[in-house]
Amino acid sequence: MTDTISFLNELTSLLGERGLIREPDAMARYTSDWAGDTLGMPLAVARPANTQEVAEVAKRCYEHGVAMTPQGGHSGLVAGALPAAHGQELVISLERLNNVRAIDPINFTMTVDAGCILENVKLAAAEQDCDFPLSLGAQGSCQIGGNIATNAGGLNVLRYGMMRELVLGLEVVLPDGRIWESLNTLHKDNRGYDLRQVFLGSEGTLGIVTGAVLKLSPRPTQNRTALLGLPSVQAVIDLYSLARRDCCDLLTAFELIPRRCIELAIEATPELSDPLDSAYPWYVLMEVAATGPIDLGSMLEQLLETGMERELVLDGALASSDTQSAQLWQFRESMLEGQRRRGEHLRTDISVPISSLPDFVSRASDVVMAASPECEIIAYGHVGDGNLHFNILPPLSMADSDKKAHLHDLEERLFEVLDDVNGSISAEHGIGRTKQAPYLARLSPIERELISGVKALFDPKGLMNPGRILPAKQ
Amino acid sequence: MTDTISFLNELTSLLGERGLIREPDAMARYTSDWAGDTLGMPLAVARPANTQEVAEVAKRCYEHGVAMTPQGGHSGLVAGALPAAHGQELVISLERLNNVRAIDPINFTMTVDAGCILENVKLAAAEQDCDFPLSLGAQGSCQIGGNIATNAGGLNVLRYGMMRELVLGLEVVLPDGRIWESLNTLHKDNRGYDLRQVFLGSEGTLGIVTGAVLKLSPRPTQNRTALLGLPSVQAVIDLYSLARRDCCDLLTAFELIPRRCIELAIEATPELSDPLDSAYPWYVLMEVAATGPIDLGSMLEQLLETGMERELVLDGALASSDTQSAQLWQFRESMLEGQRRRGEHLRTDISVPISSLPDFVSRASDVVMAASPECEIIAYGHVGDGNLHFNILPPLSMADSDKKAHLHDLEERLFEVLDDVNGSISAEHGIGRTKQAPYLARLSPIERELISGVKALFDPKGLMNPGRILPAKQ
Repeated sequence: MTDTISFLNELTSLLGERGLIREPDAMARYTSDWAGDTLGMPLAVARPANTQEVAEVAKRCYEHGVAMTPQGGHSGLVAGALPAAHGQELVISLERLNNVRAIDPINFTMTVDAGCILENVKLAAAEQDCDFPLSLGAQGSCQIGGNIATNAGGLNVLRYGMMRELVLGLEVVLPDGRIWESLNTLHKDNRGYDLRQVFLGSEGTLGIVTGAVLKLSPRPTQNRTALLGLPSVQAVIDLYSLARRDCCDLLTAFELIPRRCIELAIEATPELSDPLDSAYPWYVLMEVAATGPIDLGSMLEQLLETGMERELVLDGALASSDTQSAQLWQFRESMLEGQRRRGEHLRTDISVPISSLPDFVSRASDVVMAASPECEIIAYGHVGDGNLHFNILPPLSMADSDKKAHLHDLEERLFEVLDDVNGSISAEHGIGRTKQAPYLARLSPIERELISGVKALFDPKGLMNPGRILPAKQ
Repeated sequence: MTDTISFLNELTSLLGERGLIREPDAMARYTSDWAGDTLGMPLAVARPANTQEVAEVAKRCYEHGVAMTPQGGHSGLVAGALPAAHGQELVISLERLNNVRAIDPINFTMTVDAGCILENVKLAAAEQDCDFPLSLGAQGSCQIGGNIATNAGGLNVLRYGMMRELVLGLEVVLPDGRIWESLNTLHKDNRGYDLRQVFLGSEGTLGIVTGAVLKLSPRPTQNRTALLGLPSVQAVIDLYSLARRDCCDLLTAFELIPRRCIELAIEATPELSDPLDSAYPWYVLMEVAATGPIDLGSMLEQLLETGMERELVLDGALASSDTQSAQLWQFRESMLEGQRRRGEHLRTDISVPISSLPDFVSRASDVVMAASPECEIIAYGHVGDGNLHFNILPPLSMADSDKKAHLHDLEERLFEVLDDVNGSISAEHGIGRTKQAPYLARLSPIERELISGVKALFDPKGLMNPGRILPAKQ
C-alpha cells in the first residue's frame, strides 16, 4: 500500500495535480464506455500532457510492474480500453494530447497527437480543403489514437479503406517508456518490416500511440444521397454489384438497413416519418461523392433507373440538398439510439464475403428464430465491406436476469453459422475482452503461438493493456 | 559433402526429377535478375509443385540447417531473391505454383497461387469483368508472391495503393515447414494482430508465401491518357494538386518524365518521334480511368485548359484512342530500355513528401552535378506517391573499373540530401542486399532491436533468405 501511494505520489509530482486523478468520483468517467459497459475502478487516471510525459509514466509503470490501460474517447465496444475490476491498472488517458501538429495539403498529410478527437481532425483537414475520410457514429468523441488501436472502419471503408490504409506514420511509447518515432509523411516507403502495421489494430496491447501521420484526400465538393426500398438482401447485393460499376468507385457509403431499424429510428426520433410511401423489407442508404466536373445526380438517377428496371429497387428518395441528405442519414443515426433504448441486447460486428451475405442472413435468422422465436433480429451494416451488425433484441417479456445467458447462447449459434461461411467474429470493433473467448476458440495453434510471440516481443513484462486480445500473463 | 548429396537426393525423391535442378547450366536462369545482377550459384533449385511440397522442402531445410532463398519471377531490383555467392543456399522457386484457385466477382476477390505471373492474374480478373490494378513494367514475368514479398507499387498506387492494400488473405510456409493458412476473403477483419502485414514486404525473410487472396476492383470501361510538356518540377506539382481535385480520385497515373528520358526512349525505339512540337524540360504522362457514365474526355480537357491558363502546362497531346494511348505509354517503357543500354548506372528508388519534390530535385541535382559535372541525371517517377527514380548515368568517358566507386559516392551524397527532407531510400524496391548498408546506417537502435526481434520470432534459426534486409545470423 505504501508502495502504491509512493508510486502515485511520484506520478503526481511528474504530471502535476491536473495530471493525475485519484479520487473515485473524478475517476468515474474513465470507467465506462458508450455502450454502458463498466468493468471496475482504475488504480488512478494519468493524464499526461505530451509524448514525453506519456513516456515518463510508462517508464515508471515498467519499473514498478504496474499494468497500463491506454484510453481514448470511451467509444469502444469491446471493453478494450476500460480498466479491469481488480483496481490495479493505471489508466493512461490521451485526452490532453490534442494538437494538430502539421498539415500539408500538397502532400495530402496531417500530423496529429493521438488524443485529437476525430471530428476535430476532420474539421482541421477541411479548413485546408482536404478530407480525412474516416467517418464513424462516435466521431464527436472518439480519438485518433483509439481509431489506430482498433483499426477503425466506419461508413466510408468501401472507398477509403480502414484506418490501416489512412496512417502513414506513427509515434509510439513502448511499454518500457522508450519512444519509437516514425512520423513519416511518405506515401510510399518499403524499408524493411513495417512496424506501423504491428501497432495498428493491436488495441493498446503493444504500446501507446501518441502521434500519427494521416493520409488525406481531396475534399468532395458534391455528394448525393439516396434511400431506397428493396425486396430482399439478394436484391441489395445485386444493386451493390451494379453500383460498384455504374458509380465508378465514387460510392462512399452503401448501408443495408432492415425495416425494423426504420421503425426503431422513428420511435427514437419522433420528427422522423416513414421515408417512402410504402414499407419495404430492406432499405439501402447510399452516397456518392466527388470533386470536379462530374454529374453525380444523373449518375445516381441512371443507376436507380436500371435498378428499377431489373426490379432490384422498388422505390427510393433522392436527396436534392444537404438538408435532405442529412435527413436521410438521420435514420441511420437514430436507429442506433432506438436500439440502445431497448436495453441489454446482443451486439455483433461480423463480416462475411459479400457474395455470401444473402445466404448468411437467411440461415443465421433461421437459426436464431428457431432457438428464440420471440427475439428480434436487427441486421444492418456496411454492404460494401461485407460487414454486418447482426444484433439481437431479447424478448420484451424476458427477465433481465435471464438475458445475458440467453444472448450468449444465441451468439454462439450465430457464430457457428458464421464459421460455415468463413466469416469473422470481429469486422471492425476488435477483440478487447468482450470477444476474447470466441476469438481464442477459433485461433489456430500456429497463429496463437505467433501472436503470443509478438506480444512477448513488444511487451515482455505483459504490462500493456493486459488481458485484452490475449489472456493476461500469469 | 556426403551430407549435402544425401540431402539433395532426399529432395529429389520428394519432388521428382523435374522438381530439383542440380546441374549448373540449368541453374543459371535462377541466378540473375532483370537488372543483370548475379550473385552466385545456389546449392540447388527446388521447384515444388504445390504448397504441401513447399512445406516439405522447408521442413527438410530446417532439419538440416540449410538456408532458403524463395524466388519469384527474377524481376527484383535489390538482389533480394538471388542466391548468395557461397553456394550454400537452396533456391525455392515458386514458378510451378501458378493456378488461379478461385474468383468471386461479387465479392471482388480472387485466390491465387503465389507463383502466378501478375499479367495472368490481371487477365483472369478481366475475364470476370474485374481488375487487379497492380501495374508494373515487369508484369509479364513478375509473380504475385514476389509482389507480396516486396510490397510492390508501380504505376497505379495513387489510386489503388501498394500491394499491402490489395491483399486480403495469405497462405505462408513458415521456416520450419508449418503452414500458416489465412486465406480470408473478407474485406474487413479485426481479429487481433494482423499477421499478414508482417509478411507483406518482408522480402521472403520470414516465410514463403504460397497463396494469397487479392482484392479486385471493377474493370475500368474507359480511360484517357495525356502527355504534357511543363516548364518546371514545381509546375508538375501544381498541376498534380489541381488534378487530384479536378479529376476526382479517378487519376490512375501521374508520371514525371524529364526531357532526357524522352530522348532515351527515342534512341531505344527509333519508330518513336518527339511527341510534342517543341521540347520541354519536363513532361507528365497522366491517365484517368473510370467505369460508368462519366465524360473523362471533357474532364481531362478542362483540366488542361486550367493548367494552360495558369501556365503550368505548355503543350500537350491527348490520346483519342487506345492505340494513341499505347503510343504515349511507349515513351515510359522505352526510356527504361534506353537507360539499360547505357550499362552500369546508379538506380535509386526514393520517396519524399510530394510537396518537397521540386526542392529535392533541385538540391539533389546541384549536389550530384557539383561532384560529377559530366554525369547525367535521369529523375523520373510516380509524382502522386512522391516516388522518384533519381538515376545517374556515369560519364561516357569513365572507365568501367571506376564506375562502381564513383556511383556509390554519388549515391551517398544523394541520400544525404534525402535525409534532409525525411525521405526514404527505398520507396518500392525494398532493401534486399543492395540497399542494406544505407538502410542499416539509418536505422534507430530501437527499430533495429524490434525488427531483429520479429526476424528471430518467425525465423529462429535464421535460415529464411538470410542476409536480406538484416545481416545474416552469425
